[in-house]
Amino acid sequence: MVQLGLIGLGKMGFNMRERLRAAGIEVVGYDRNPEVTDSTSLEDMVSKLDGPRIVWIMVPAGDPTRQTVVELSNILAEGDMVIDGGNSKYTDDKVNADLLAAKGIGYVDAGVSGGVWGKDNGYGLMVGGAPADVERAMPIFDALRPDGPREEGFSHAGSVGAGHYAKMIHNGIEYGMMQAFAEGFELLEASKVVENVPAVITGWQRGTVVRSWLLDLLVRALDEDPELDDLEGYVEDSGEGRWTLEEAIDHAVPAPVISAALFARFASRQEDSPAMRAVAALRNQFGGHAVKKVGG
Amino acid sequence: MVQLGLIGLGKMGFNMRERLRAAGIEVVGYDRNPEVTDSTSLEDMVSKLDGPRIVWIMVPAGDPTRQTVVELSNILAEGDMVIDGGNSKYTDDKVNADLLAAKGIGYVDAGVSGGVWGKDNGYGLMVGGAPADVERAMPIFDALRPDGPREEGFSHAGSVGAGHYAKMIHNGIEYGMMQAFAEGFELLEASKVVENVPAVITGWQRGTVVRSWLLDLLVRALDEDPELDDLEGYVEDSGEGRWTLEEAIDHAVPAPVISAALFARFASRQEDSPAMRAVAALRNQFGGHAVKKVGG
Amino acid sequence: MVQLGLIGLGKMGFNMRERLRAAGIEVVGYDRNPEVTDSTSLEDMVSKLDGPRIVWIMVPAGDPTRQTVVELSNILAEGDMVIDGGNSKYTDDKVNADLLAAKGIGYVDAGVSGGVWGKDNGYGLMVGGAPADVERAMPIFDALRPDGPREEGFSHAGSVGAGHYAKMIHNGIEYGMMQAFAEGFELLEASKVVENVPAVITGWQRGTVVRSWLLDLLVRALDEDPELDDLEGYVEDSGEGRWTLEEAIDHAVPAPVISAALFARFASRQEDSPAMRAVAALRNQFGGHAVKKVGG
Amino acid sequence: MVQLGLIGLGKMGFNMRERLRAAGIEVVGYDRNPEVTDSTSLEDMVSKLDGPRIVWIMVPAGDPTRQTVVELSNILAEGDMVIDGGNSKYTDDKVNADLLAAKGIGYVDAGVSGGVWGKDNGYGLMVGGAPADVERAMPIFDALRPDGPREEGFSHAGSVGAGHYAKMIHNGIEYGMMQAFAEGFELLEASKVVENVPAVITGWQRGTVVRSWLLDLLVRALDEDPELDDLEGYVEDSGEGRWTLEEAIDHAVPAPVISAALFARFASRQEDSPAMRAVAALRNQFGGHAVKKVGG
Repeated sequence: MVQLGLIGLGKMGFNMRERLRAAGIEVVGYDRNPEVTDSTSLEDMVSKLDGPRIVWIMVPAGDPTRQTVVELSNILAEGDMVIDGGNSKYTDDKVNADLLAAKGIGYVDAGVSGGVWGKDNGYGLMVGGAPADVERAMPIFDALRPDGPREEGFSHAGSVGAGHYAKMIHNGIEYGMMQAFAEGFELLEASKVVENVPAVITGWQRGTVVRSWLLDLLVRALDEDPELDDLEGYVEDSGEGRWTLEEAIDHAVPAPVISAALFARFASRQEDSPAMRAVAALRNQFGGHAVKKVGG
Repeated sequence: MVQLGLIGLGKMGFNMRERLRAAGIEVVGYDRNPEVTDSTSLEDMVSKLDGPRIVWIMVPAGDPTRQTVVELSNILAEGDMVIDGGNSKYTDDKVNADLLAAKGIGYVDAGVSGGVWGKDNGYGLMVGGAPADVERAMPIFDALRPDGPREEGFSHAGSVGAGHYAKMIHNGIEYGMMQAFAEGFELLEASKVVENVPAVITGWQRGTVVRSWLLDLLVRALDEDPELDDLEGYVEDSGEGRWTLEEAIDHAVPAPVISAALFARFASRQEDSPAMRAVAALRNQFGGHAVKKVGG
Repeated sequence: MVQLGLIGLGKMGFNMRERLRAAGIEVVGYDRNPEVTDSTSLEDMVSKLDGPRIVWIMVPAGDPTRQTVVELSNILAEGDMVIDGGNSKYTDDKVNADLLAAKGIGYVDAGVSGGVWGKDNGYGLMVGGAPADVERAMPIFDALRPDGPREEGFSHAGSVGAGHYAKMIHNGIEYGMMQAFAEGFELLEASKVVENVPAVITGWQRGTVVRSWLLDLLVRALDEDPELDDLEGYVEDSGEGRWTLEEAIDHAVPAPVISAALFARFASRQEDSPAMRAVAALRNQFGGHAVKKVGG
Repeated sequence: MVQLGLIGLGKMGFNMRERLRAAGIEVVGYDRNPEVTDSTSLEDMVSKLDGPRIVWIMVPAGDPTRQTVVELSNILAEGDMVIDGGNSKYTDDKVNADLLAAKGIGYVDAGVSGGVWGKDNGYGLMVGGAPADVERAMPIFDALRPDGPREEGFSHAGSVGAGHYAKMIHNGIEYGMMQAFAEGFELLEASKVVENVPAVITGWQRGTVVRSWLLDLLVRALDEDPELDDLEGYVEDSGEGRWTLEEAIDHAVPAPVISAALFARFASRQEDSPAMRAVAALRNQFGGHAVKKVGG
């Protein structure tokens, strides 16, 4: 029976354990939250797995992932393998892989898409690593990925780092698509020419060029809240949009749509825009144009 | 048996006739091209339909559509109805509807999405008009729209003009989505971190957040031409992206993504950019920076 | 002695009268405000001028200007001349010129830049009209324009409409420049690397590439309010930025900077962004990402 | 008599030596080019200066500057001081300062603006460093900066790195301003409403809101080449625009104008856009839209 150690049983990891178990994978999970964990420590988790082991990390990118890799490098044995399925920056992968390689431990990075729906729909996977390592983990990937032809929901993108790179670009595209729908939604709302905006958007789900999963989700959201006015227009960004834009800079690739989508998120989080205060100040200076004074 | 007069049997109209006939609609088509037409003139087409008639116009937007409406206003009888299924500007609809209403002829505008795939997949439809007119044409709409729940591939968007308005915004969103995929594609190609770009994009079709019909089409294109280098990066725009941006201006709606997508198309058609000649000239003036001289 | 009828003695017109009189032009002003007017009605103003007369309109663009032209067409005599110095859309000029030409009255459109500073600095002028008309009004233009070579503060841009067209593009550029300074200001404020932001911006006034009148005004604003926090980041737009973008659309000219500057103003006036509510809703749908609920 | 060692006598350094000498500073220059150098090596240059010395580095940013600092750290004596006047990334300054501080050598970073015109007009300066170091170099700064009040052409922006940071933001603004003028120029050219585009732009030099040094340079360029058609629309970028955008990403500051200006430069250097090939491919897939085949 295929076994997997799974570290991090939050929103994503918890659901992944469900899907893996439903596919017959024996999962030993570890999480600091005692209500969800299957083991009391990383050591305990590792001790419950037969070697050679595969351990999947599903914790926040950056320091938490890095620290987990370091700890695993001290616990795992030669011949074991680590998969980082978090939203890590692709440049972190080489560092992690090198650390583990020094101990004879394999490393694969996996970009995982699909959100909370992945438990039932399967997760879109993009992985990077040595062919033998990827092959060895294939039963895990097959359990996680959506049904249907493997190549439509899974890709071996290249060597270590390529999986997270592909996921980063995927998310950059996602930012652009979401903003495109968002601008269309606002235009429909603002113009009042269309009398039933949710009906129009609902009617785009079949036959149109814009049909997509994001559209289906927008329809779901509109079903719950037809004018989306229970929400504030405040949007976080998770890092991958920023990294995508940094790649655009590094490779001199024009990325006007992805950058516009990212900047719209930045602006959404500002109570007041310092830049626009400067524009207001300039207009006031040259034209005596009225300005809004704070508290005025 | 339901009848329809169909004017314009080009790429779209020809396929629509096929789908309508397959659904049991009796279609009398008219086109100036004798190889595809079912009638010798608009008058001939009209004479072959029992009253009260429904006539669908599927000719280029602007003058050709306008002229067809004027001719029909002189040929059709009180109680007949005209549907404009072309990519007309929504402000044209009121003019057409008023002209026809003066003769007691009904009018519905229909935004039609789905391209050459509509024959088999069905066409996404957004229509505008009086409820009774829309209801009367419902057998036609049901034949054209995709299988599945009617409300997922068809909407009655509002009064006259609302169908084309919805289609215009749909296309604006489409521009943004296409550009998002395009930027992602270029980044993957430029960075070389991902070794097999088509495999990654193919693997996005299931489970991911970006899964969509446009993605499926990109996969098809990459199957035929893995680096898309048989094509030039030259892209026309059809009017609806421009109108969407004009709406954004009129309603003071920020539309950075849709405008960026439109401008990218404008730029794609320029051999050389006058604006960038000005930037080059400025850099040369202040910094003595090297410039490329024409013919140099 | 050169005479001028001047209609509209608001912020701009009032100052222009001062400058014209200082240059020895005899100005008969008319304004509905009895405190500033020199005449009791348009008829009264016209009666106080010797023929052939020149009358300058300095009222808000659109209906007020149009109405004034219509009234003048009924009051003025053949051989008289009208100059529209407001911020009219260039397409209005042809309509006005035709109306007046039918009565033998000349027409020149004048784009006027310089704001409240024009009284002392002179106004930058761009005019459109027949050469003879422009020549006839030259003493007026010379009185209004800045000191120095005429061609550096005045241009005859072309036939009727060209003056306002040049002013429109001027303002589009102005939007872009202001936004560039505004983004730079916000970056300096946000990063905290520069300890004295006003000192740095003040130090850009001589020798640098960005030195400009707008920079000087920014320095003035910072002198009064070093962090510009007495103002809200709320910025109106006056029409010309929108028209510039419409021209970009009509001529398929990429205008990413001017559009970005305009959209930033649109966004500055939104309490909450419907588009960003849509993005928040989408993120919540697929990822269970936390959102800010209204009132939450 | 104030002395300065000046390393790098290219376009900028050569002119700076002229201006410094004209102001009575004794300059010992070093350049690998024997035709312009005053000394045969760095060691030779240093030996010709009385201690405590000030040495100004004016070589390309990155490795050349870094290498020069390393060499100087081995040659200079405690109490000497280095000024980096190149276009270095501000994060380099801390590294350089630390290396030199370990040997008791001071460090100031200086952003220098003004291009080839600086010799006569003076250079806009933004410097970072300890107050005592900045004070000590003030005679040099005073010689280089433009005439007029010191605070209008010189700023002490903050501690080490702040000078280059201010210069980076200055250049980001510059990118945006140049692009704004460029878009305006293209619009004037494309629309043909204005008959004499150079005359209009020339007439913007006095009284208008857009009057600026960049405008004056555009007028110069148009004097030489009225349609700017001797040049190609191909524009390099020097690093500072990219870094500015990276700062925007790091600080979550929306920078739509500066990014648009940078992307326009990226696009100007592409023979063909991979992104737009993808858009063309998509349109072809869904609509059967005509595409341009390579060689077709």
